[in-house]
Amino acid sequence: MRVTVLTIGDEIVSGHTLDTNAAYLSGRLAELGFRVGRIVSVGDRIGEVRAELEAAIADSDLVLVTGGLGPTHDDVTKQALAEAAGVALVLDRDLHALLKRRFAAGPGVRPEVIESLSTVPQGARALENPLGAAAGLEIGIGAARVYAMPGVPREMEAVFDAAIADELDALPKRCFSRSRVIRTIGLRESEITEKLEHTVPSLDVDVGFLPGTYGVDLRLVGSGSDGPAATEKLEKAARLIENVLGMSVYSTEGEDLHDVVGKMLIARAVTIAVAESCTGGLISHLLTQVPGISASFERGDVTYSNRAKIDCLGVGEALIRDHGAVSREVAEAMARGVRQTAGTDIGISTTGIAGPTGGSEPKPVGLVYVGLAHDGGCAVKEVVFRGTRRIVKLRAAMLALDLARRHLSSKGV
Amino acid sequence: MRVTVLTIGDEIVSGHTLDTNAAYLSGRLAELGFRVGRIVSVGDRIGEVRAELEAAIADSDLVLVTGGLGPTHDDVTKQALAEAAGVALVLDRDLHALLKRRFAAGPGVRPEVIESLSTVPQGARALENPLGAAAGLEIGIGAARVYAMPGVPREMEAVFDAAIADELDALPKRCFSRSRVIRTIGLRESEITEKLEHTVPSLDVDVGFLPGTYGVDLRLVGSGSDGPAATEKLEKAARLIENVLGMSVYSTEGEDLHDVVGKMLIARAVTIAVAESCTGGLISHLLTQVPGISASFERGDVTYSNRAKIDCLGVGEALIRDHGAVSREVAEAMARGVRQTAGTDIGISTTGIAGPTGGSEPKPVGLVYVGLAHDGGCAVKEVVFRGTRRIVKLRAAMLALDLARRHLSSKGV
Repeated sequence: MRVTVLTIGDEIVSGHTLDTNAAYLSGRLAELGFRVGRIVSVGDRIGEVRAELEAAIADSDLVLVTGGLGPTHDDVTKQALAEAAGVALVLDRDLHALLKRRFAAGPGVRPEVIESLSTVPQGARALENPLGAAAGLEIGIGAARVYAMPGVPREMEAVFDAAIADELDALPKRCFSRSRVIRTIGLRESEITEKLEHTVPSLDVDVGFLPGTYGVDLRLVGSGSDGPAATEKLEKAARLIENVLGMSVYSTEGEDLHDVVGKMLIARAVTIAVAESCTGGLISHLLTQVPGISASFERGDVTYSNRAKIDCLGVGEALIRDHGAVSREVAEAMARGVRQTAGTDIGISTTGIAGPTGGSEPKPVGLVYVGLAHDGGCAVKEVVFRGTRRIVKLRAAMLALDLARRHLSSKGV
Repeated sequence: MRVTVLTIGDEIVSGHTLDTNAAYLSGRLAELGFRVGRIVSVGDRIGEVRAELEAAIADSDLVLVTGGLGPTHDDVTKQALAEAAGVALVLDRDLHALLKRRFAAGPGVRPEVIESLSTVPQGARALENPLGAAAGLEIGIGAARVYAMPGVPREMEAVFDAAIADELDALPKRCFSRSRVIRTIGLRESEITEKLEHTVPSLDVDVGFLPGTYGVDLRLVGSGSDGPAATEKLEKAARLIENVLGMSVYSTEGEDLHDVVGKMLIARAVTIAVAESCTGGLISHLLTQVPGISASFERGDVTYSNRAKIDCLGVGEALIRDHGAVSREVAEAMARGVRQTAGTDIGISTTGIAGPTGGSEPKPVGLVYVGLAHDGGCAVKEVVFRGTRRIVKLRAAMLALDLARRHLSSKGV
């Protein structure tokens, strides 16, 4: 089965937009047992789109297309599909009725826009787009089956998941692969490589190392004659790797660190409050991404100014004067203060110099103190992070979340 | 000048890795006055790489290739280039001497690996890689000029910048293009299309519409006989579009909304405090991404619980009891409260139901109130957003930032 992914849009060939759609589709197709042979991107010119479509159709059994399905002048995919198939664009009455109903609820959209959105190449089947107005399409051209999806990533994903994945899964296939991401924090890539030196060769899966901004991910790919066989290989490998790396592994399921910490807090009914200076609200933002966190997350104080640290957290004015706002002492006072004010089980704090300015000889840009107050006392960590303002904020937030994770794990609460 | 970018690697066609190399090269080529016609990605199979190379060479004047230049078995680019050119791989003595010297300094690398890294297709010129062992290549095949670069992004960028960019810049070009992104919030794509119906055809630039999660971007591409001519067309078009869309345009330079608001606050010496419930710290996080914001950003209170709203912001217990925490009245009390407590020029607030649970008949998931308190009073906006928890948070935060932007603009402060 020869598969081509064709992504359409000037924003891709001009370098303005990363082609995340191609990566998403290739990954999903791999899970479903298909190997993508080639990915092609072209701009919004009808002649070029048509030429690439025709080349893909001649060469492939399955063609997945994204982009160019909207109602504006630069949306040429439907026309190109119709030309490649040698058919006309016709009104899909069911789609037209659906879109008219949907638009009737909101502010006025001109009838000709709705009509344009409701045309399909003759013989094509419209695929509902639950998140937007541009429907997907399925059409057979020559010996190839062509699926077209909108270019907005979440709409593309929604159409693929709702209307296309099951149809592809029902096609005959030879080999299934499954993948899984093990996420770590606190070890360098070289340390992980050394620790796993004897483990990786014995695993029946491919292992890739992906160093990130605040930790290293390990991507495992297992293949088998069916999905469960591939999944079993992955699970065995994940267990072995976790045994070697221990607490540095925060997820064997590719989860984000804040999701792991948020779920631990909720599951263990531990309440938390956060006092942030240099991280500027990032920790609160990440924790409140987790559904159901309101049971555990009591409040967050983004105490950027000294005044706010004193007023909101009860940090002593003299403490700031004697040690500076960026100090071990103030980090501890912030964590203890927010825990006490909010009346929570734990309190975490950050204070540091995110940059690009504000550094000095004894306190360079990137210096960060992270505090964790709990019923047994208060721990403070001092680190100097390299990187831009954004990177320092991110690394500091992740260090604080990791401190909370290790505390919650060790307590077994 | 027809240009193809060809990226090689199983990690791309399997969806493991985003193809950032293609985006980087396309963007750099656009700056240098070339329009990339197509981007093609294939895996590491020699037959497929050779076929795509031959198709690109037949079709293009300039071909940029990344990936597959290393010494391992899955690095097939040099062999494919040699086959496409009909020549043998030969040892490049200068490159060999250079790599031997370089490797002599570090840990042991086997001589045959160094030798493999030093071979090039006969007639090709090696391009030094300052950051790694795999050199780039330049070779003419048929009428096309082909440049090959390593696949590791920072090495690819280093080879392109050091050895290729200047050569391309010296080529005769017909047309220079420049691009620019106009960012809007508050209008749908269809509304923008309607408003610009008569403007777009009169512009001497290409206009692409890119709807995002909380606004629509317009990407303009202007072409001219040199860079300044292209830039002038862009500037003229941007002014015309801004005249039509008015306050909905928050940047004609592709900036993020929080950067625009942060810079306005700093430039006008306006101080701000933020009281967030449903956005959970996201507004504070975004504002504190802006360097220098500590002069304007006094504090943020993430008052997730009712208790926090009462304690930190002075919201009346009765107000919450009578109207609910998610209400116009509480949004106003939060904005006024944080402004007063922090003693800032403006205070903004959010309260809403981010979901996925917590909705009810009169107050559905996605209902959000956003408040803005200033010296002239307090404005509150009510909206119901569709989407996941993350999307509701993001849209609510952007609405609040936009409210602040419009206030700051109207004041002309």
